[in-house]
Amino acid sequence: MTRKIILDCDPGHDDAIAMLLAHGNPDVELVAVTTVVGNQTLEKVTRNALSVARIAGITGVPFAAGCPRPLVREVENALEIHGESGLDGPRLPEPELALDRRHAVDLIIDTVMAHEPGEITIVPTAGLTNIALAARKEPRIVSRVREVVLMGGGYHQGNWSAVAEFNIIIDPEAAHIVFNESWPLTMVGLDLTHQALATTEVTERIAALGTGPARFVNELLDFFGATYRESQGFEHPPVHDPCAVAYVIDPGVMTVRRAPVDIELTGTLTRGMTVADFRAPAPDDCHTQVAVDLDHQRFWDLVVDALERIGEGGRVGDDDAGEALA
Amino acid sequence: MTRKIILDCDPGHDDAIAMLLAHGNPDVELVAVTTVVGNQTLEKVTRNALSVARIAGITGVPFAAGCPRPLVREVENALEIHGESGLDGPRLPEPELALDRRHAVDLIIDTVMAHEPGEITIVPTAGLTNIALAARKEPRIVSRVREVVLMGGGYHQGNWSAVAEFNIIIDPEAAHIVFNESWPLTMVGLDLTHQALATTEVTERIAALGTGPARFVNELLDFFGATYRESQGFEHPPVHDPCAVAYVIDPGVMTVRRAPVDIELTGTLTRGMTVADFRAPAPDDCHTQVAVDLDHQRFWDLVVDALERIGEGGRVGDDDAGEALA
Amino acid sequence: MTRKIILDCDPGHDDAIAMLLAHGNPDVELVAVTTVVGNQTLEKVTRNALSVARIAGITGVPFAAGCPRPLVREVENALEIHGESGLDGPRLPEPELALDRRHAVDLIIDTVMAHEPGEITIVPTAGLTNIALAARKEPRIVSRVREVVLMGGGYHQGNWSAVAEFNIIIDPEAAHIVFNESWPLTMVGLDLTHQALATTEVTERIAALGTGPARFVNELLDFFGATYRESQGFEHPPVHDPCAVAYVIDPGVMTVRRAPVDIELTGTLTRGMTVADFRAPAPDDCHTQVAVDLDHQRFWDLVVDALERIGEGGRVGDDDAGEALA
Amino acid sequence: MTRKIILDCDPGHDDAIAMLLAHGNPDVELVAVTTVVGNQTLEKVTRNALSVARIAGITGVPFAAGCPRPLVREVENALEIHGESGLDGPRLPEPELALDRRHAVDLIIDTVMAHEPGEITIVPTAGLTNIALAARKEPRIVSRVREVVLMGGGYHQGNWSAVAEFNIIIDPEAAHIVFNESWPLTMVGLDLTHQALATTEVTERIAALGTGPARFVNELLDFFGATYRESQGFEHPPVHDPCAVAYVIDPGVMTVRRAPVDIELTGTLTRGMTVADFRAPAPDDCHTQVAVDLDHQRFWDLVVDALERIGEGGRVGDDDAGEALA
Repeated sequence: MTRKIILDCDPGHDDAIAMLLAHGNPDVELVAVTTVVGNQTLEKVTRNALSVARIAGITGVPFAAGCPRPLVREVENALEIHGESGLDGPRLPEPELALDRRHAVDLIIDTVMAHEPGEITIVPTAGLTNIALAARKEPRIVSRVREVVLMGGGYHQGNWSAVAEFNIIIDPEAAHIVFNESWPLTMVGLDLTHQALATTEVTERIAALGTGPARFVNELLDFFGATYRESQGFEHPPVHDPCAVAYVIDPGVMTVRRAPVDIELTGTLTRGMTVADFRAPAPDDCHTQVAVDLDHQRFWDLVVDALERIGEGGRVGDDDAGEALA
Repeated sequence: MTRKIILDCDPGHDDAIAMLLAHGNPDVELVAVTTVVGNQTLEKVTRNALSVARIAGITGVPFAAGCPRPLVREVENALEIHGESGLDGPRLPEPELALDRRHAVDLIIDTVMAHEPGEITIVPTAGLTNIALAARKEPRIVSRVREVVLMGGGYHQGNWSAVAEFNIIIDPEAAHIVFNESWPLTMVGLDLTHQALATTEVTERIAALGTGPARFVNELLDFFGATYRESQGFEHPPVHDPCAVAYVIDPGVMTVRRAPVDIELTGTLTRGMTVADFRAPAPDDCHTQVAVDLDHQRFWDLVVDALERIGEGGRVGDDDAGEALA
Repeated sequence: MTRKIILDCDPGHDDAIAMLLAHGNPDVELVAVTTVVGNQTLEKVTRNALSVARIAGITGVPFAAGCPRPLVREVENALEIHGESGLDGPRLPEPELALDRRHAVDLIIDTVMAHEPGEITIVPTAGLTNIALAARKEPRIVSRVREVVLMGGGYHQGNWSAVAEFNIIIDPEAAHIVFNESWPLTMVGLDLTHQALATTEVTERIAALGTGPARFVNELLDFFGATYRESQGFEHPPVHDPCAVAYVIDPGVMTVRRAPVDIELTGTLTRGMTVADFRAPAPDDCHTQVAVDLDHQRFWDLVVDALERIGEGGRVGDDDAGEALA
Repeated sequence: MTRKIILDCDPGHDDAIAMLLAHGNPDVELVAVTTVVGNQTLEKVTRNALSVARIAGITGVPFAAGCPRPLVREVENALEIHGESGLDGPRLPEPELALDRRHAVDLIIDTVMAHEPGEITIVPTAGLTNIALAARKEPRIVSRVREVVLMGGGYHQGNWSAVAEFNIIIDPEAAHIVFNESWPLTMVGLDLTHQALATTEVTERIAALGTGPARFVNELLDFFGATYRESQGFEHPPVHDPCAVAYVIDPGVMTVRRAPVDIELTGTLTRGMTVADFRAPAPDDCHTQVAVDLDHQRFWDLVVDALERIGEGGRVGDDDAGEALA
């Protein structure tokens, strides 16, 4: 059965690839794409999402912009990873899709409530502001959603602090809300995504596809690889966000472990940490699990396969390319 | 000029009196009433708001229900002050008004955006969950609102902890959002409202009006007075919420002092404290002020006058009275 | 009966006056003076203490140096109030007393244990590092001490933050230890000491004494008054530390109120706040009280009287004056 | 060269084995043993230390009792692991050694100051209250100590909370002091010690020694194994404290990794966590390292060898055995 997903994202290089994976793979269906401040400003990531939609050839899916700032903390963007535009590297085409008039929070709520219970999976690959607001504004979505599979956090790894990851630390209160609701939640964190490296073999496979969208992905990976090398010392960049989509497509792509996970809000050194408790077997009512080991081959097979199916996607020519945002 | 206000409340005995004051006074106009979890569950306080509307004879004003729980913290109600129904004491009539179909957050946003900038004053007399969500969902309301005049907090007094007041401590993250937005904000806190005592002289003046709504108010004050006596040792109950409405009607009813105010989120003993900084003259860009001294006579004159103008209000007879919620 | 006190201090302009008051007044007896980092480095405040001892003519009292840094937090001094030397203004004579070889913590412990239970009162007028260490190293002192009367904190006032006072915020963990031990503790905080202003009338009375120590005090007040005017906007400087000594001499010099007081350790805005709970009558086992109202006349009478009794003190001539520490 | 160590401990089953290892191994020399509240009350662990000394045949080494409670937090013992006596299981002989009259803090200071710089290694296997007080009372010990090798914490594991270990969480402020001083510090945490399992092979090797001390150790492991099985689900008990001693004897017994480590003091879920930052190579001035992988065979060889060298130790007969403390 095709799994219907709402992708809540802040493209963002790996968000863009996550969107392409979700669009190209036949086992998931994008029913809505929502954006939220994170890697860059809401304005920029929203425009990026629409540009990626054009490259991928996504049509008929509502896109809506959400929150321009976190709940409590001040805005923090990831300029040093994603650049000025949030999607530096390739030239981006002008968007063709128009935004849905609704706020992302309402699009999420409406989409979940319009489907049967258990039909919709939410896949956040950004800060959790939109999802938290949706759960607070319409609590009934919580039992209606099939599951939340998110990229964020890390049980033993951090990147924005020693023990916290960017998507969580930029809005820890929102993360606290999302992790403490009763829906089944899979945390695909840095422990897993730091295994999803875009090695030379991977980029060569993508290059061999020879399509526009494939070139676009490799241009993203070029820029992303360079910033990860410089800022965090990675030889090859970890491609976080598609891992969450891949888990929805094929849970066998990674191993997971059930454990209670909660968000630290008051720590001086640990604010935004996703605190997992592995001391004992998870209690029966434990609704959270964390991703542990990635099947690297199977994961990249999914990505390459999706790109292959997309083909030339929206057939964006060189003439269609706009300027990267300054 | 009549001041248009949105009353965001959780009736609650003093909320009910605030609503009567706002309805009866000619210098303010209720343009919306929204409810939020607080003194009791959302369901109960919403029903109470509609019952009070009937008693007061309020028609043509949209009432909408908002958030059933705070942003991050667990629900905490004020059972020992307001009783099982949230409005224990008088018998409450069945509501006649139907709720607006919108969520309170959307009603607040729509109302502010539909009016001219500077037209709408928001008067929260409950936890700030609705107001915080509205500001996050539609940031443009912040510069469009004339001011926020709220009952909550206290610069030198607490009631739910040594230094924190109920409306703030039940959702400190929401309070942090509201106090840190740039709108002009007047905090009518315990320092002020503990002066708004319903003395015997006050209840005698109200009794002398001889109307249904006046009897209703005195029945509220009977119950409220008893719980305040028992739980906090007050001889006469402090009637908090109408003070905020009174300030909108007539700023001369109290003195205020400009000072930066922020909300403590991580303190062990001080979480939810409204921390005011009086060490130096307020900086030029200070957008917050706190209420200091109440003109007791002038305040109660406003309340009695409003009740007088309301007269028999919705003309609720004894036969109309439903049962207090168990 | 003469009250035996240990003065734990960081001179400091007002500490110096506290020392003079304790020495000159016949109803208290200085049995030890200990120093601790605070207004300036341990080295500087210790030298200052010995210089003041010479001016006052204090002999036969052990002086010991204590902790050069707080328990957990980094060192913070009050340069802008007390200057480079910690006692800027007058020229300071070379010390003549030799320091006791013991650590202040051991001198405190030995002194308390060598006296009968209930004989020794500890009067801290600085950060509480020494006192906390003494209580942890030798817990038996706690029940043996008559009481702790300290200058520090404030139930409604702060100076180093909106709600915290210098002596507490520089070592909040030490304060937490001292306030939570079971000894009777009187907090003479900013609420009280901001009433102890050295008005023109006061400095004129002191000038009229015409002695060396009196001139020394007025030179201190000149400098202290100037820094308080500039940094905190006071017309006349609040002379904090002698208030604690004055309370030991004559409890009638101020009103006090019993209330539980605890120290906030984790607050973002409130760290180091002395959180007093006035919501209900103090419980029977409440061992803390706070100073409320000062009898200004009676207080300064004590100070002037002490200076008068000291006379020329150690008879320090102009030739004895060393240089102020740079 | 023989390494001189101060063992600061709270026996405690694994502390007892650590003491036996330090006594029996020829490459380390016990120059002082100090005790501190932890696994049980100060009184009990101090008596236990003296009983173990008798079993081991330790003489001529000063033993001193230290702090009966942590700096700031309330006392917490590990009853469910170590039993009522703190050393439940074997019958304990009456102590023969008399305690040194000094406080443990002073014994530590005196010992360090009486030796050449770089001679003394401090090996804490308990809460860090004594060590923290010593560093605060006599800051000169910090540069004089060769290194601190402590059992405590865990970079990816907790036992008393999801992410904190007992020795750290019982006095996090003391741990903050010790970890933030400039001495070289090796954290032998749960990541390492959970590898130091007393397997059946291990207990059989010990049993084969056939001595009184060996029987004592196996009786300890019997009890300890049972409580670890019940309370934490271990098949064989992790024998934490001797690992720190083993590292001093032979650094090759484990791998270590340099990384900054700090202590979380304000976290709600993470208080007492030893936060290690592995995101980048450790900076040049990094003075902390963490133990990673244990050479299980080499470790137990050291323990068995030490027991073999101890032989019958203090030759405690059955008649000498006192009662376990109730």
